[in-house]
Amino acid sequence: MVKVLKGTGFSSISAHKIEILEHYLYCLDNKGMIAKRLAPSNSLYQSTLQEAKKEGKLIELSEGQYLLPGFIDLHIHAPQWAQSGTALDIPLHQWLNTYTFPLESKFEDTAFAEKVYSHLVDTLLANGTTTGLYFATVHEEASYKLAEICAKKGQRGLVGKVVMDDPEQNPDYYRDQDTQTALADTERFIQRVKTLHSETTQGVYPVVTPRFVPSCTDTALAGLGQLAETYDVHVTSHCSESDWEHGYVKNRFGKNDAQVLNDFGLLREKSVMAHCNFLSEADALTFEEKGTAIAHCPVSNAYFANSVIPIKQFHDLGVEVGLGTDLSGGYDPSIYSAIRQAVISSRMLEDGVDTKKDPKERGMKNSRITAKEAFYFATAGGGESVSLPIGRLAENYAFDAQVIDTTVPQASMPIFEKIEPLDDIFQKLLYLTKRENIVSVWVQGKQISK
Amino acid sequence: MVKVLKGTGFSSISAHKIEILEHYLYCLDNKGMIAKRLAPSNSLYQSTLQEAKKEGKLIELSEGQYLLPGFIDLHIHAPQWAQSGTALDIPLHQWLNTYTFPLESKFEDTAFAEKVYSHLVDTLLANGTTTGLYFATVHEEASYKLAEICAKKGQRGLVGKVVMDDPEQNPDYYRDQDTQTALADTERFIQRVKTLHSETTQGVYPVVTPRFVPSCTDTALAGLGQLAETYDVHVTSHCSESDWEHGYVKNRFGKNDAQVLNDFGLLREKSVMAHCNFLSEADALTFEEKGTAIAHCPVSNAYFANSVIPIKQFHDLGVEVGLGTDLSGGYDPSIYSAIRQAVISSRMLEDGVDTKKDPKERGMKNSRITAKEAFYFATAGGGESVSLPIGRLAENYAFDAQVIDTTVPQASMPIFEKIEPLDDIFQKLLYLTKRENIVSVWVQGKQISK
Ligand SMILES: [Zn+2]
Ligand SMILES: [Zn+2]
Repeated sequence: MVKVLKGTGFSSISAHKIEILEHYLYCLDNKGMIAKRLAPSNSLYQSTLQEAKKEGKLIELSEGQYLLPGFIDLHIHAPQWAQSGTALDIPLHQWLNTYTFPLESKFEDTAFAEKVYSHLVDTLLANGTTTGLYFATVHEEASYKLAEICAKKGQRGLVGKVVMDDPEQNPDYYRDQDTQTALADTERFIQRVKTLHSETTQGVYPVVTPRFVPSCTDTALAGLGQLAETYDVHVTSHCSESDWEHGYVKNRFGKNDAQVLNDFGLLREKSVMAHCNFLSEADALTFEEKGTAIAHCPVSNAYFANSVIPIKQFHDLGVEVGLGTDLSGGYDPSIYSAIRQAVISSRMLEDGVDTKKDPKERGMKNSRITAKEAFYFATAGGGESVSLPIGRLAENYAFDAQVIDTTVPQASMPIFEKIEPLDDIFQKLLYLTKRENIVSVWVQGKQISK
Repeated sequence: MVKVLKGTGFSSISAHKIEILEHYLYCLDNKGMIAKRLAPSNSLYQSTLQEAKKEGKLIELSEGQYLLPGFIDLHIHAPQWAQSGTALDIPLHQWLNTYTFPLESKFEDTAFAEKVYSHLVDTLLANGTTTGLYFATVHEEASYKLAEICAKKGQRGLVGKVVMDDPEQNPDYYRDQDTQTALADTERFIQRVKTLHSETTQGVYPVVTPRFVPSCTDTALAGLGQLAETYDVHVTSHCSESDWEHGYVKNRFGKNDAQVLNDFGLLREKSVMAHCNFLSEADALTFEEKGTAIAHCPVSNAYFANSVIPIKQFHDLGVEVGLGTDLSGGYDPSIYSAIRQAVISSRMLEDGVDTKKDPKERGMKNSRITAKEAFYFATAGGGESVSLPIGRLAENYAFDAQVIDTTVPQASMPIFEKIEPLDDIFQKLLYLTKRENIVSVWVQGKQISK
């Protein structure tokens, strides 16, 4: 063993069940994996503890500190971090053309990219996000820079060079030069990041990333599906986000977004599709069959998706679900905020919104999720979505974790009883943790330096 | 002048218009009021600045720091802070009886009350809340303790001893002994807090506080209306919060909650009613006529109100509106979170939630509010709601303020341009401020000590 951590942790067994790991030992091997996890009742517990102490390998959480798995953010537009919190008052299509594309086009300048991306990755790590699935921009160099920054700072980054090649649908100042260039750049990007990956402890991964169907030609979509197959890499895009986007794809292809993506070979085991609010039940079953995950982005959905996704129904159909901040359609870099808004939005879907309607026809029954389920999506569900052994404090999982201190000055939590049930503590962690309560963050067994 | 602050601030002129006070001077008198506010173009600006510097009275914000009015939280259940973040998965009526009443009953122990209330007031101040309107418990002593804690810590507290006297509707272990005792305790509480007020710089105020109509007898409600009139004090309660509560009152009185409260003399200029989701248009007009305000609690509404309040419509009818955290029906002590959720909830009301419905019949048109409007509710609107000169960085207003530092380590904001428009900075402050960005808080011209 390289290190042994001792402390009380919480980890999902399933969407509905949490393990409370009171005073457990987490024994890490030299790859940063949890090789052994020992309960106090385990016969090896005392000897392991004493030995680790003797050898100076023990790290003990202090009283009032708790361990959670690091969060997995399945949907981040890295360049948009520079405009986070602004311009949230207009529809998606207009928002892209007026604010977002002009900003993203600036990332041709890799020095600017480095500044924004460094700040973003630092911010996400400080907020407990140990794995991030990123849209970069169309620029190969700046996209590679983002992968390098993740590698260097110790975050597990899945990074996509964005493809948007259709001259009809994208501004001249911001798109791929042409379809062939888009595919060639993507292929070279995949190869370069795979090399970088092999030199990186926690791993960085290239992602095939058509922005969304409206911005790509058929040839590009088919070529990207082929590249995903050839290199067996992750795929991400947007799917059926808003009335406008869902309608656009239906107009162009005469079928739903999900079926179009599937036809081009883009719904795969390692695919993650953002939003998916307007999936039909048949679409959801296609996701389930292919092993494709939904990146649920509850904050940005309030601004751009014209609806609340029936996430419980889709998850009940067997679709993998994780959470995303969707910076900067969502303004908040914290997955805690995504957890909280996921619960809140689901309740609004269940109860409905319009007081003028009778309660019986106001909402959609059985749509709410609990904080436990949202936590599952943020951790274990996110790990399953990207098909990596992350998101649980369990054996044979990477030790990606955050230490929450409930006692820090100015942000101490309202815990007044000597012995408060750990189930209540867990709920308080989910609802009340602020950035400053996150006192240390670990990825693949290494503590992130601040 | 006692002190002069120099810095860039933001303050509401109206719900739709912000003043950007670039490099202004705010000159405070010995009562903690803003006696003068000088723009750089003002002919007195340079001389005032130099003089203040010479006399050691100048406090300058540094680069990247901005001044906002302190926030006004119109709805806080102080005792419930101890359970904040837990038990949010059950309906209101059950939540009260299973969790909340047993907890509140513990506040008979004033030592326990002191522990919880001190922690709460510290937490709210650290989050930029300079004025709080509190429900305490039925216990006169503990309620008075809360007023004392506000007075001592420098927060402007409006505190209510809660009345819940109906033996049919309240548990034996937690209610007023009888109606006469409830009224006598309330009257003595009013007198004691008025005395405390006269000794307190920033002011503390007694509040007439029937918990809500269902928990009070007619005699108590009438008596409380009389006390409000006699002492000309603030009044607060809940009004038409949920299907259950709205329905209960309609059953008992054959009319809407608002009309019942009005009949008992409880809708007054200094009245603030929490939630109000199910007000009819006639109810709202009664509010407008009486000068009664709505405390909009968007976070807790998601859990307990079965709907989104059409807040824009009520505000357009002329009703005063402020924001509330509703701890612990809402879990978050930050009014920033209330601002953000108010915007998000209003968009869900406008767009609707159910993807199966046609966009045209999914939501309720023209219901969204902007972040600017939510900020107005959190500041100037809150001030108008409690009829006090607070909530604006303007002359003849109390200097209640928070200094936001966009550059603090680990929580610095994504501001990358040398000169970013201040309107964008303002939006970033509203959406991205975390607790640790709030580096100092002022109430009535005095900086709160940490
Ligand atoms: Zn997106
Ligand atoms: Zn309340």
